Amino acid sequence: MSHTVYLVGAGPGAPDLLTVRAARLLGEADIVFYDALVHPATLALAARAEKVLVGKRCGRHSTAQRFINKRLFDAARRYQTVVRLKGGDPMLFGRAHEEISFLTQHGIRVEIVPGVTAALAASAELSISLTRRGAARSVTFVTPRVGHGEKESSWIAAVLAADTAAIYMGAGEASAISAALIQAGKAPSTPVALVENASLPQAKILCGVLEDLPQLAASLGSGPVVILLGDVYAEAAAVEFLRSRKSATQA
Amino acid sequence: MSHTVYLVGAGPGAPDLLTVRAARLLGEADIVFYDALVHPATLALAARAEKVLVGKRCGRHSTAQRFINKRLFDAARRYQTVVRLKGGDPMLFGRAHEEISFLTQHGIRVEIVPGVTAALAASAELSISLTRRGAARSVTFVTPRVGHGEKESSWIAAVLAADTAAIYMGAGEASAISAALIQAGKAPSTPVALVENASLPQAKILCGVLEDLPQLAASLGSGPVVILLGDVYAEAAAVEFLRSRKSATQA
Repeated sequence: MSHTVYLVGAGPGAPDLLTVRAARLLGEADIVFYDALVHPATLALAARAEKVLVGKRCGRHSTAQRFINKRLFDAARRYQTVVRLKGGDPMLFGRAHEEISFLTQHGIRVEIVPGVTAALAASAELSISLTRRGAARSVTFVTPRVGHGEKESSWIAAVLAADTAAIYMGAGEASAISAALIQAGKAPSTPVALVENASLPQAKILCGVLEDLPQLAASLGSGPVVILLGDVYAEAAAVEFLRSRKSATQA
Repeated sequence: MSHTVYLVGAGPGAPDLLTVRAARLLGEADIVFYDALVHPATLALAARAEKVLVGKRCGRHSTAQRFINKRLFDAARRYQTVVRLKGGDPMLFGRAHEEISFLTQHGIRVEIVPGVTAALAASAELSISLTRRGAARSVTFVTPRVGHGEKESSWIAAVLAADTAAIYMGAGEASAISAALIQAGKAPSTPVALVENASLPQAKILCGVLEDLPQLAASLGSGPVVILLGDVYAEAAAVEFLRSRKSATQA
């Protein structure tokens, strides 16, 4: 028994944006614990594995983290290859720390398989680079929890200081995010781009400016959304503005 | 003729950290333009393609960007499937913008295939999450060009404001980076982790604190390095300190 738990990034959504290593491990897995956002075709690669949904989705009921830790530990004692499949990359907003430290403290070997994170898939979808020579040399990835207290201002300062920002799991709090950033000094005219379901056929892109973020977010569905913010999106926002004016004239 | 140029992320180094889509496109490619850091086994997937090294490595002689743009354009007119293979992800510090805008302006279709970026592979190597519930909710990715003027302070402000920072292509300027960050107010005792050749068998990890960054960087080889910075690395830095003290006692 190897007693290894593989924490595997499932990538942004499209099954073929999984890494080759992740695909191989899924094929070898005896049991797979997966998040709600993992694509069915990705999961299907784990042909011989027992599949257990432990997935959390922001704002929905979720299996308690301690219970997930315990289940991973129990599985590692029974099975040779245990895969914990997480949307995107496991080391970015994935609560991997809690799983890694619990398992290693209990003598279970943990290996991490990195994945393509949502902001990179969103950038590919937009064809706009997060960084641009001469215009953007820093990009910050944050997740806000406006209203929940704890270190609330930290993500705001990070967004203000970086040339480009990618806000994860923020679409449901778009009004609070927009207000907080503008109050902290970010220009209401800062270009934004929202990408829902990046890398999937039903991907949706909306562009505009920071002060319109609440309306933009309200036009999206219930898929995962990355909010991108910064001058590199100026052109996309302008194109969108012209398009909306044109359709208004035609209407 | 589809006249499509695929800007493809080759991932952090290990050939099996390529995405399934990237592997398929390499197999279909007629011609591949690749960077110096792409793994030979990754390149070998492009079995039937002409392979052209256009690679830039930080601080070394590089083919001028305009010449690369022109070659991609010429190839797209001749071949059906042109792959531009870039280390890591194309949209993060990859100068993708220049290639995308040149090609689309000249009527060539461009598609981006995102990849696993080095900081995520470095985090996997370290088994330390870039973000941690309650401790780190923002992570910034920067590349410094200390001494080259243009917006020099921008990356510093971004690093100061984020809980965790990943500094790309900075190992060669470690002294200047350490000095600039400390002068800007970052604590000299801020934990750092350096990962060279993340995801490859010859990967090397060094941990310590910000004021020792120059010495740590000097102990590394010539492979690509990600410098990670933040409280999440405190434990790793402490373990390293104890280990070095132990070996000093034994010596």
